[in-house]
Amino acid sequence: MTLTHLNQQGEASMVDVTEKDITDRAARAQSAVAMSADAFAQLQAGNNKKGDVLATARIAGIQAAKKTADLIPLCHPLALTKVKVDFALDDENHTVHIESYCRLAGRTGVEMEALTAASVAALTIYDMCKAVDPAMVIGPTKLQEKVGGKRGHWQAEASPTEEEKKQ
Amino acid sequence: MTLTHLNQQGEASMVDVTEKDITDRAARAQSAVAMSADAFAQLQAGNNKKGDVLATARIAGIQAAKKTADLIPLCHPLALTKVKVDFALDDENHTVHIESYCRLAGRTGVEMEALTAASVAALTIYDMCKAVDPAMVIGPTKLQEKVGGKRGHWQAEASPTEEEKKQ
Amino acid sequence: MTLTHLNQQGEASMVDVTEKDITDRAARAQSAVAMSADAFAQLQAGNNKKGDVLATARIAGIQAAKKTADLIPLCHPLALTKVKVDFALDDENHTVHIESYCRLAGRTGVEMEALTAASVAALTIYDMCKAVDPAMVIGPTKLQEKVGGKRGHWQAEASPTEEEKKQ
Amino acid sequence: MTLTHLNQQGEASMVDVTEKDITDRAARAQSAVAMSADAFAQLQAGNNKKGDVLATARIAGIQAAKKTADLIPLCHPLALTKVKVDFALDDENHTVHIESYCRLAGRTGVEMEALTAASVAALTIYDMCKAVDPAMVIGPTKLQEKVGGKRGHWQAEASPTEEEKKQ
Amino acid sequence: MTLTHLNQQGEASMVDVTEKDITDRAARAQSAVAMSADAFAQLQAGNNKKGDVLATARIAGIQAAKKTADLIPLCHPLALTKVKVDFALDDENHTVHIESYCRLAGRTGVEMEALTAASVAALTIYDMCKAVDPAMVIGPTKLQEKVGGKRGHWQAEASPTEEEKKQ
Amino acid sequence: MTLTHLNQQGEASMVDVTEKDITDRAARAQSAVAMSADAFAQLQAGNNKKGDVLATARIAGIQAAKKTADLIPLCHPLALTKVKVDFALDDENHTVHIESYCRLAGRTGVEMEALTAASVAALTIYDMCKAVDPAMVIGPTKLQEKVGGKRGHWQAEASPTEEEKKQ
Repeated sequence: MTLTHLNQQGEASMVDVTEKDITDRAARAQSAVAMSADAFAQLQAGNNKKGDVLATARIAGIQAAKKTADLIPLCHPLALTKVKVDFALDDENHTVHIESYCRLAGRTGVEMEALTAASVAALTIYDMCKAVDPAMVIGPTKLQEKVGGKRGHWQAEASPTEEEKKQ
Repeated sequence: MTLTHLNQQGEASMVDVTEKDITDRAARAQSAVAMSADAFAQLQAGNNKKGDVLATARIAGIQAAKKTADLIPLCHPLALTKVKVDFALDDENHTVHIESYCRLAGRTGVEMEALTAASVAALTIYDMCKAVDPAMVIGPTKLQEKVGGKRGHWQAEASPTEEEKKQ
Repeated sequence: MTLTHLNQQGEASMVDVTEKDITDRAARAQSAVAMSADAFAQLQAGNNKKGDVLATARIAGIQAAKKTADLIPLCHPLALTKVKVDFALDDENHTVHIESYCRLAGRTGVEMEALTAASVAALTIYDMCKAVDPAMVIGPTKLQEKVGGKRGHWQAEASPTEEEKKQ
Repeated sequence: MTLTHLNQQGEASMVDVTEKDITDRAARAQSAVAMSADAFAQLQAGNNKKGDVLATARIAGIQAAKKTADLIPLCHPLALTKVKVDFALDDENHTVHIESYCRLAGRTGVEMEALTAASVAALTIYDMCKAVDPAMVIGPTKLQEKVGGKRGHWQAEASPTEEEKKQ
Repeated sequence: MTLTHLNQQGEASMVDVTEKDITDRAARAQSAVAMSADAFAQLQAGNNKKGDVLATARIAGIQAAKKTADLIPLCHPLALTKVKVDFALDDENHTVHIESYCRLAGRTGVEMEALTAASVAALTIYDMCKAVDPAMVIGPTKLQEKVGGKRGHWQAEASPTEEEKKQ
Repeated sequence: MTLTHLNQQGEASMVDVTEKDITDRAARAQSAVAMSADAFAQLQAGNNKKGDVLATARIAGIQAAKKTADLIPLCHPLALTKVKVDFALDDENHTVHIESYCRLAGRTGVEMEALTAASVAALTIYDMCKAVDPAMVIGPTKLQEKVGGKRGHWQAEASPTEEEKKQ
């Protein structure tokens, strides 16, 4: 039997973290949903026909953080010890800002968990408001801050606010 | 026994689509991941250490479309009949553009499935490139087009390209 | 080769519904959580430390209905077209009453989906209030009504209220 | 940009257990399914048409314990080290009693895992016997005992038996 | 902006079955687990320490059939209408033979569902007997028969039995 | 009330590993898919119509390893720290050989995770090539090696190669 071993260059695998130390790790991520004045007014007034938008999006985001390893193929399964999803309303730009926070004592970081929580919270807001405005825009979705692990503390540079971008 | 029935205003429920017609429905959504020159060069050269980024993101996006009803609390479970995730590389802006397409003969639209596929493909690209650039930005994530159902054909207005935004 | 075919008497299988008609089916189920005066007061006042108890339980119940075939081994996967979970507060008995409703155009009934939604909503209420009162009691959980299918309409006999039971 | 930060009072989050000690934790929960004489006789004789009721319910309960964090929104994902589901038959009252037991070396208790195992075992019994008796009643479902963690040992007060309740 | 559209040759997608007819489809698959005399004797006597091997494997196989689209990336989600897993014991070769059967009224075949049921039933038998014999061998796993769809009826050629292979 | 406690002999439960030591554990498993010359040529040439067969199977195998406790009823949930799936092509026998490797610092071994990864990678290859050859054969699937735990190192005896089997 002659076996052609496939070139392993470029082949996906879940990297080995067995020998990494268990340290306290945390990550903070953000996303946003920009919508029409009508959709935003309805969300603020709490009379969306499908129900309480932010309460539903918060639960969806928390549950999604726990599904990260099932969604992102090379993510390690992690026993998250804290998940939080918060919202802030920007009246001027009809935008819901989303901030997620995950924490863990573990061998690998929780950036993907925080980003997944923020993304799924955003998708849920889209789902509940899409009857009023299908043209809503999700993003920018990004990591804000990360603590723990070999690299220690990492923080995103201040990104331009919606206001600044317009100038 | 005196029962206080809770006010049902604003309470979440999965809306009733039992009596909607089964029609051919499709949706197209987009997302993008903007990254540093280094991360982009590595992705293009196919020498990312975690493996083939786009092949992995494509599978992740397709599988995520099938998990939509599990992720988005008020989405109906749907038997998708087609899911596709494509990528285009924008060298100038170091950006991977993602386009997803879902189709179904069913009672409700597949916008959320297309948006979920695009979002999870974007998150997977982030996961595989984050060792090189943790500051990558995901988005804008939005619906491009939707066909079928009561409202028929809907198409997003042309959004400004990255080039246009810079001007 | 001599094969001993195992006796199929009593062996589990998912029954064949391929040839059943697709009809409009619905089911209504109930559960309840009886708790201490303290836990009930905190739930009513909305100052439970883990968050909004009933909003969280409602989402958990709706999502659980969609997981029924994954939880109950012999249940058929069903594309539910409606799920609703409602609550009523019984001040006198410090009890939260839960009512779930599921609907489907399909080949088999949705009783298990309604019962699963009510059960998981009850478990979620327990989870959020257990720091105050670990002795809460869940139940009775039962089917109230079922519509559609070969047997048509079925309705539970009026069950004694909490009041009646005490007499 | 003026952001309205939403009042965080009453908003759901998965509480932070990162700094809790890893201790040996266990929980015991119970549920029950009361059914008609016919359904009970069939279950006892082992000639239920859908298969072996208790073997199926036992597996369903064990698997459900492992899904607890996916079902109950604010539960932490836990790496259970033991799950057991047992049954006892009460001939007089045509009732199947269910007892579940979960154990873990971890940062948070396993009450919800034990309660979820008992609840899903009960739902599975309902599913398999419902063709004979759709009026079966599930419950009371409750925690019996809990060991480990800050509060140490907790035990439910003896609850009245079915016999006692009738008097 | 200059976009480099990636060559779509060879890229994975879930094929479009939207316009296929809904027909009655079924598939039958097989697998087997060959084990040591000791492990086989223990399985036959029903005194395996982890519990009833075949009852557990049967449930695992049925539940796995329902998870097929979640496991196999390009499989369409299907609403199976029948799943069955059966076993036959070959005393001479210390082998458990597994046969699975799935059925559906749908747009695409159920071969993968039948193969997944047989494979996971085999893995479960391995799991429960591995303390006695870690060298057990699973397979051959293959499709036996398939009915429905464009190609109609397909049947595997008679494969050599274990007996025949030895000659 | 007279309770008949069911005989616990032979009843399934997830065994208690709470008091086992956390040690470095690894396992290596194999499977294979034998196919027709045509299907094999298409796979090698990379022009399978459903996409890149091995890239898709590799991701499916990795994701399946993480689902092991959800698929195999009595498996403990494990936080895998490494998963890898590799392929080798045997031109002469038109066979794809699959090797999986899993690692963990934990209380119980990862044999089932490695076997599940190899099995689901094999099923995915079958799925993508079945249009060309529905008669493909999966197996033998077996454990090759296992490290860690009470029993230390275990290695399968050299199994006959395909070549040897033919003689």
